Amino acid sequence: MLGVCYYPEHWPQELWATDAHRMKALGLSVVRIGEFAWSRLEPEPGRYDFAWFDAAIETLVTAGLKLVLCTPTATPPKWLIDAHPDILPVDPLTGHVRGFGSRRHYDFSSEVYLREALRISAVLAQRYGKHPGVIGWQTDNELCCHDTALSISAAALQAFRAWCVERYGTIDQLNAAWGNVFWSMEYRSFGEIEVPFGAVTETNPAHRMAYQRFSSDQVVHWHRAMVAVLREHIAPHHFVTHNFIPMQETGVNNFELAAPLDFASYDNYPLGRADLALAALSGDEFKQYMRTGHPDFQAFVFDQTRCLTPARRFWIMEQQPGPVNWAPHNARPATGMVRLWTWEAIAHGADCVCYFRWRQAPFAQEQMHAGLLRPDSVAASAWPEIEAVVREMAGLDMTTLPSPHARVALMVDPEAEWLSDIERQGAGYDYRQILLDWYRAARELGLDLDIVQPDTDLTGYAVVLVPCLALSNAAAVSRLVATTARVLLGPRSGAKTVEVTIPDGLAPGNGLRALAPVQVTSVETLRPDVSELLHWNGGTYTSRVWREAVEVVGGEVTGTYEDGSAAVIRNAHVTYLATLTDDAFMRAMIAQLCTEAGVALQRLPPNVRLRQRGDVMFAFNYGASGVVTPAPAGADFLIGGGPTLEGHDLVAWRLA
Amino acid sequence: MLGVCYYPEHWPQELWATDAHRMKALGLSVVRIGEFAWSRLEPEPGRYDFAWFDAAIETLVTAGLKLVLCTPTATPPKWLIDAHPDILPVDPLTGHVRGFGSRRHYDFSSEVYLREALRISAVLAQRYGKHPGVIGWQTDNELCCHDTALSISAAALQAFRAWCVERYGTIDQLNAAWGNVFWSMEYRSFGEIEVPFGAVTETNPAHRMAYQRFSSDQVVHWHRAMVAVLREHIAPHHFVTHNFIPMQETGVNNFELAAPLDFASYDNYPLGRADLALAALSGDEFKQYMRTGHPDFQAFVFDQTRCLTPARRFWIMEQQPGPVNWAPHNARPATGMVRLWTWEAIAHGADCVCYFRWRQAPFAQEQMHAGLLRPDSVAASAWPEIEAVVREMAGLDMTTLPSPHARVALMVDPEAEWLSDIERQGAGYDYRQILLDWYRAARELGLDLDIVQPDTDLTGYAVVLVPCLALSNAAAVSRLVATTARVLLGPRSGAKTVEVTIPDGLAPGNGLRALAPVQVTSVETLRPDVSELLHWNGGTYTSRVWREAVEVVGGEVTGTYEDGSAAVIRNAHVTYLATLTDDAFMRAMIAQLCTEAGVALQRLPPNVRLRQRGDVMFAFNYGASGVVTPAPAGADFLIGGGPTLEGHDLVAWRLA
Amino acid sequence: MLGVCYYPEHWPQELWATDAHRMKALGLSVVRIGEFAWSRLEPEPGRYDFAWFDAAIETLVTAGLKLVLCTPTATPPKWLIDAHPDILPVDPLTGHVRGFGSRRHYDFSSEVYLREALRISAVLAQRYGKHPGVIGWQTDNELCCHDTALSISAAALQAFRAWCVERYGTIDQLNAAWGNVFWSMEYRSFGEIEVPFGAVTETNPAHRMAYQRFSSDQVVHWHRAMVAVLREHIAPHHFVTHNFIPMQETGVNNFELAAPLDFASYDNYPLGRADLALAALSGDEFKQYMRTGHPDFQAFVFDQTRCLTPARRFWIMEQQPGPVNWAPHNARPATGMVRLWTWEAIAHGADCVCYFRWRQAPFAQEQMHAGLLRPDSVAASAWPEIEAVVREMAGLDMTTLPSPHARVALMVDPEAEWLSDIERQGAGYDYRQILLDWYRAARELGLDLDIVQPDTDLTGYAVVLVPCLALSNAAAVSRLVATTARVLLGPRSGAKTVEVTIPDGLAPGNGLRALAPVQVTSVETLRPDVSELLHWNGGTYTSRVWREAVEVVGGEVTGTYEDGSAAVIRNAHVTYLATLTDDAFMRAMIAQLCTEAGVALQRLPPNVRLRQRGDVMFAFNYGASGVVTPAPAGADFLIGGGPTLEGHDLVAWRLA
Repeated sequence: MLGVCYYPEHWPQELWATDAHRMKALGLSVVRIGEFAWSRLEPEPGRYDFAWFDAAIETLVTAGLKLVLCTPTATPPKWLIDAHPDILPVDPLTGHVRGFGSRRHYDFSSEVYLREALRISAVLAQRYGKHPGVIGWQTDNELCCHDTALSISAAALQAFRAWCVERYGTIDQLNAAWGNVFWSMEYRSFGEIEVPFGAVTETNPAHRMAYQRFSSDQVVHWHRAMVAVLREHIAPHHFVTHNFIPMQETGVNNFELAAPLDFASYDNYPLGRADLALAALSGDEFKQYMRTGHPDFQAFVFDQTRCLTPARRFWIMEQQPGPVNWAPHNARPATGMVRLWTWEAIAHGADCVCYFRWRQAPFAQEQMHAGLLRPDSVAASAWPEIEAVVREMAGLDMTTLPSPHARVALMVDPEAEWLSDIERQGAGYDYRQILLDWYRAARELGLDLDIVQPDTDLTGYAVVLVPCLALSNAAAVSRLVATTARVLLGPRSGAKTVEVTIPDGLAPGNGLRALAPVQVTSVETLRPDVSELLHWNGGTYTSRVWREAVEVVGGEVTGTYEDGSAAVIRNAHVTYLATLTDDAFMRAMIAQLCTEAGVALQRLPPNVRLRQRGDVMFAFNYGASGVVTPAPAGADFLIGGGPTLEGHDLVAWRLA
Repeated sequence: MLGVCYYPEHWPQELWATDAHRMKALGLSVVRIGEFAWSRLEPEPGRYDFAWFDAAIETLVTAGLKLVLCTPTATPPKWLIDAHPDILPVDPLTGHVRGFGSRRHYDFSSEVYLREALRISAVLAQRYGKHPGVIGWQTDNELCCHDTALSISAAALQAFRAWCVERYGTIDQLNAAWGNVFWSMEYRSFGEIEVPFGAVTETNPAHRMAYQRFSSDQVVHWHRAMVAVLREHIAPHHFVTHNFIPMQETGVNNFELAAPLDFASYDNYPLGRADLALAALSGDEFKQYMRTGHPDFQAFVFDQTRCLTPARRFWIMEQQPGPVNWAPHNARPATGMVRLWTWEAIAHGADCVCYFRWRQAPFAQEQMHAGLLRPDSVAASAWPEIEAVVREMAGLDMTTLPSPHARVALMVDPEAEWLSDIERQGAGYDYRQILLDWYRAARELGLDLDIVQPDTDLTGYAVVLVPCLALSNAAAVSRLVATTARVLLGPRSGAKTVEVTIPDGLAPGNGLRALAPVQVTSVETLRPDVSELLHWNGGTYTSRVWREAVEVVGGEVTGTYEDGSAAVIRNAHVTYLATLTDDAFMRAMIAQLCTEAGVALQRLPPNVRLRQRGDVMFAFNYGASGVVTPAPAGADFLIGGGPTLEGHDLVAWRLA
Repeated sequence: MLGVCYYPEHWPQELWATDAHRMKALGLSVVRIGEFAWSRLEPEPGRYDFAWFDAAIETLVTAGLKLVLCTPTATPPKWLIDAHPDILPVDPLTGHVRGFGSRRHYDFSSEVYLREALRISAVLAQRYGKHPGVIGWQTDNELCCHDTALSISAAALQAFRAWCVERYGTIDQLNAAWGNVFWSMEYRSFGEIEVPFGAVTETNPAHRMAYQRFSSDQVVHWHRAMVAVLREHIAPHHFVTHNFIPMQETGVNNFELAAPLDFASYDNYPLGRADLALAALSGDEFKQYMRTGHPDFQAFVFDQTRCLTPARRFWIMEQQPGPVNWAPHNARPATGMVRLWTWEAIAHGADCVCYFRWRQAPFAQEQMHAGLLRPDSVAASAWPEIEAVVREMAGLDMTTLPSPHARVALMVDPEAEWLSDIERQGAGYDYRQILLDWYRAARELGLDLDIVQPDTDLTGYAVVLVPCLALSNAAAVSRLVATTARVLLGPRSGAKTVEVTIPDGLAPGNGLRALAPVQVTSVETLRPDVSELLHWNGGTYTSRVWREAVEVVGGEVTGTYEDGSAAVIRNAHVTYLATLTDDAFMRAMIAQLCTEAGVALQRLPPNVRLRQRGDVMFAFNYGASGVVTPAPAGADFLIGGGPTLEGHDLVAWRLA
């Protein structure tokens, strides 16, 4: 299914019918509306204006389109902020209030704001919750975007103290848990607790982790209440979803955040993300991805978004159709890439891809952000590519195919991510990058992956990649112990107890020693431009960034450092890596584990990736040049075909 | 005419007479005094002390010197700040008050400060406005230096709201103009308006442009009142001028700011500017300019300063005579450069060059800033070079020559500059740099340029270079349509309406399609280290940073992108560039237009530049090595001569 | 003597006896305790709890250990901050209060805090000041760490005004001294004075220097009171010391700060310091020092710490035993380096080296900081190296050897350091780096150095290196005039009067012209990546960063710039360098002076250093590879020996 994001309030009413007709004619089924429209839906406190919205809905539905409605809560109007200025969040780094004038100017700990957000949401759900043209709802927009998960407002501090009461019971237990004796940081009562920012030098990592968990809980709590108020009023068959930013940037436990949803959605902007993520590349290196995005970044988030909810499905709620406006540099997509990105999402399990936005807005912050139409209503560059997708979809209804269940799982641990921020120890240590590095190595071997969370049931996986399971998680450990899958466990796993202390008996703690029978006696971190050696399986690789010295208490040493000491330990189905390393090693290691586990591999040319959905296999070429089509001889092609897979093109064939 | 900046209040009274005598003996005619002297002229609120100032004036005038007096308003004294702390400006980026302790610590929106500035200026003008030794007045000092055009004080916000009332009439019109519906940013009344800083993410570009225009208006308004109060009291033959910082750094419409002046002045510090502007060069590349400055930076500002007022004349009010103190690194000028810079200013139309300062101050912030004298009153390194200038001027009174009127004009658009800051879209897009790039290309061809503003009468120009005319300007468009000159119009021209929205029918809007018969269907921006191809006139160049895809609706495509699509469009007398490009292209293109227009060219050796004033032609060698003198055989030399133009030297000859 | 830092309050009481026994068994003699323990010693205002501390002391003493007690004043408890929030310091750069949650959250100008710090110190000194197990006291911890010397709190401003009254007497004298007339910065009363931060642009360097001196005085005053209150109560044979951070980072006059102490101590973290100090090196260059530290950084601070007090002895109060946690990257020490660093400290005059810390804390901010024990109480990597040191010390009691008195002195001037910060003039000018550059050049020649302050008696030195004696110091000048030593005086010496103005008659002023018979007529500063030539003694070197043009009024020109003008001037026993230069020049120059003065040299292989203490000579190899042992044939080795000095190893022999 394809769709589009539409803002009727931005356009004269006389355009709506034509727009609706053209959407339908293009082959779109779904329109998302109502996002950011609070100041039009409620122009004055308590005075609602639904006439225009009713008319817009009527127009779209009449044209045969299905609607996704949004709560407009990412943009509280000025009158609400002026009446309750303490809705505004406060920046942890500067202590400055983050003001009105753009979006997301609210604090998740503001009780006033939660009340107001629930109110406007309830009003909308009551009014449109049974509307036959509506199929679902989106909560808010891009929660936590612009680093809004954390705030140090008075409301946040108050809520944090209450959260601490709840978690620790007594102040003595909190002091003990955090080790506050260390620098006479002991509190005598919960009312003395401060936020872990603005001190003379670094604050206690346990304090910071608590604040991160609290902040995540606040977002989850806020969102759960929003979903609940919608469900109270909407038809049971209406879905509720949320359009996520990249999972690594929310600062929140995305699994918990998505829990009350029917499925998660993702806003997919490959070029803006590439410009940011690949900024360290030279111009020559970067140019190959400038108009395509990196071949793994989108796929990684697709896989994670799909796996956030048990339904194992997802939507792309916003898909980049041309240049955007918000990255430092904003190139045009190469011809063919909008089609490719669309199919790539579908191949990874997307039920619907909605383009953002219908028509390029000629005003305000995003006027340089392309739409399907130019501001003058002429079709923009992505249009023919969407027409192509519509044609191709006609013979290939992916929504009837089962959600893919991969044989390889990559485990993402939100608390490992937070620990990486809070106690980096080595400036080059970046859990987010490690995730992508492991994912890329697997994808270069032609593997499909699921992204699982620590407490996901691992049944059915043949290989489980665990870049870092940093803190205590008994459920995860017992599953990893019990699984028959090959497990690859990365360094820093079990490094800390739940309260961010070193485990008794040293790391890995929390039961992880059953997996990795070592004691981490010492850790060193290196500059990214310095490396040492890693010997494994007859090859020589590099040991980089994070290096653990371990005492081996079981299993077998299969890889060693430059001095012969243990760096890779095999213990039954588990391999423990005591160091970060390089791409060549990761590919070789994952290949070995897959071979053992009977998972088929296919070493792919650079920038070519495979993805299976149901009995359909896709191949995507992110490169500019053609490659030999990586399909078996005599493949039954559903999309494309022939001996060459051209640059920026894809093929799909039915598996025998 | 030559002059010097002098601060009698910095020196014992017994030195004044000797100083005056030495100034006169050196050949100086003019002395600027009174800048920054408020705390001595009015040591207590309302208690004036003119005795010392009278004596200083008397001493200087008696020695035969003419005086330029200043309003001391760049440095309000402590007692005034303590009485009215809300005079202080507030930093838009941090929200912090910018305090007392240096200079420029006042807000252009402070009504109290304007009143006080007018009061002290009136008092001075009344007292000295008819003094026979005085020839003119300088307002304030380096307006807007240290990023002081913008402030977000309470006074500024209040004034901004009033400015919005004036401009937009109703809040609905403001909301519509800015597109505030976009993120529910709508205001219900003018009293709800905020400054466009400190929000969670980027604010509305229309809002930012309004604030920029408002801030420019505030400075212009403040300055207009200052000029008016002076003119109320001074003799009609006294001129009023202001010493500008480089035009690109004021953040203000310099044409409007200069409008009430008799002529504009410039403070010329080639080495400090080069150290800042060329910081990205390697050490080897930079070294060639380290002691000379860049050969075009000064000239560019000279040409702009001259053209700010209809009089087409200007002064250098401060000329660097040795190392300064305020750049990251402060080299000594190469021997000969003070002479060269002086003549270069004169060649560009300067009536007077005043050196800053007479004697190096041994105390306070600028004690490492050279003067004509060392702190021990011995002549410093520039002294013999000024003696040389004096000798050379004796036979060549430039002030009798007409102000030069160039045949090539470069159009500078303040609003294009602001748009470049507000909606950069590509981090490498820098309107200020584009101006310099175009200027340099023309100068390398031996061309003289005028710097015109969008509403300058273009009569008499053969070639008009318009790097970017970004926003609506009907007068400019009609002149560009009507002119018989060749016009080169750069990308992003007509990109926005006056309220920073995309024009109906796409860019170029605002009537510019009559010049550039294209529709900009899409824009992409590239990293500065990535480029694509540009084919034109048989040559291959590069397309960089800003690239427009256009549909051609008239004219002829004369240049194409790497894919054959239109990149250069010729339409009668106008050539439209849809992309930024490189130096080689700019030189070739400008050369072609000049050849068509019958403007003579002379391709110059690197770092050599020509400048004509009246019937005198100058050649300047910024390089360290000698070059063949770029004069015709048998030239009638007025300065220098011979077959070789040495490094850091100049020649001048009378045109036949 | 060896010792260790111990925090009994971090561990269960049942561990204490075992810990004490193991310390003793390892060969440690000294234990430092009580640092940071305020919240346990006084859990509520005025309610003390000494029971646990008594027990800990008893346990340690019983085991035969001697104790150093600390005032816990670096970490005021929360109840004290809540009762007196104005104890907190205010950041000069941001104006933000620096809050509770880590350490050093107090303002040296807070009278309340000084009172409280003296109170808790007096209580401790009264209780334990005659304890037979105690041998000495440490004041506070790492004074001024985390940039805490400067604060702009209300208390600091108030105290600064009083300090100005004291120093200047009348406001007119202050205005004159600072040259406040310059930008109308004149004050009418001391109550108008502001802090020199937060102004629109740079503040007056005289104002900034005054604030720096004031801030230094505040720290010195605070510390003097702390030492006095201890001495009031403790036994006369108890020493009082303080554990300094690197001298270059305190922002304080370390000589004055150390004056009331019996001796100074240093906290030695070679790897963390190297990671910070060598960040500009490439990975390949850095790797050689990654696990050793730079061969001169520690030695430089050792020499300075030893020379801070007339006793010419010092302690290492904290010695890195493994990876630390606070640098951007934290490598492990190479095997052998803990032993090497320990002996290196002893060779430089240390009486005791205490390792930080006994057992790695598994909680709070420093849980990734190694100890002698791992968190699980097993011996960590440094343990066998300390055992080796203990064995080696058995036959070589360094404490009986005289403090070394070097024949070469390097003069460190705190005010030159502050001037370097306040009026950098060239961004590449860094007095701290210059000190290290000169020190390194001398050490590469096998020289031992003392670090002297400007008013140190120079008797006994054969060569005195003075990188910069920037401001007026009559005592220093007369000693430098009178000495028979060769003196090498660096550029910028005598550059300013005591109030940071250019001296009458130009630099060098303050009597320094008797040493350097030149007039500095002009200064230029260059980018670090640009250099010019320096000719001297038949060789060609580089002139860099800071270049003075001088008129020579005496002595002999022995070195010249690229244009033949004077760059090196020899005047009897003094050589004046008018420019900064390179390592090769510095080595050649120092070698020449030493040869003249009869000081023996030994050009050492890279990364090898010598150090003599008493009649014992040490050689240290910071490199990874062995070198020919730099000992005379037939040396009487006390440690190690043989023809090769291995990498990361040392030897010591008795001098004949």
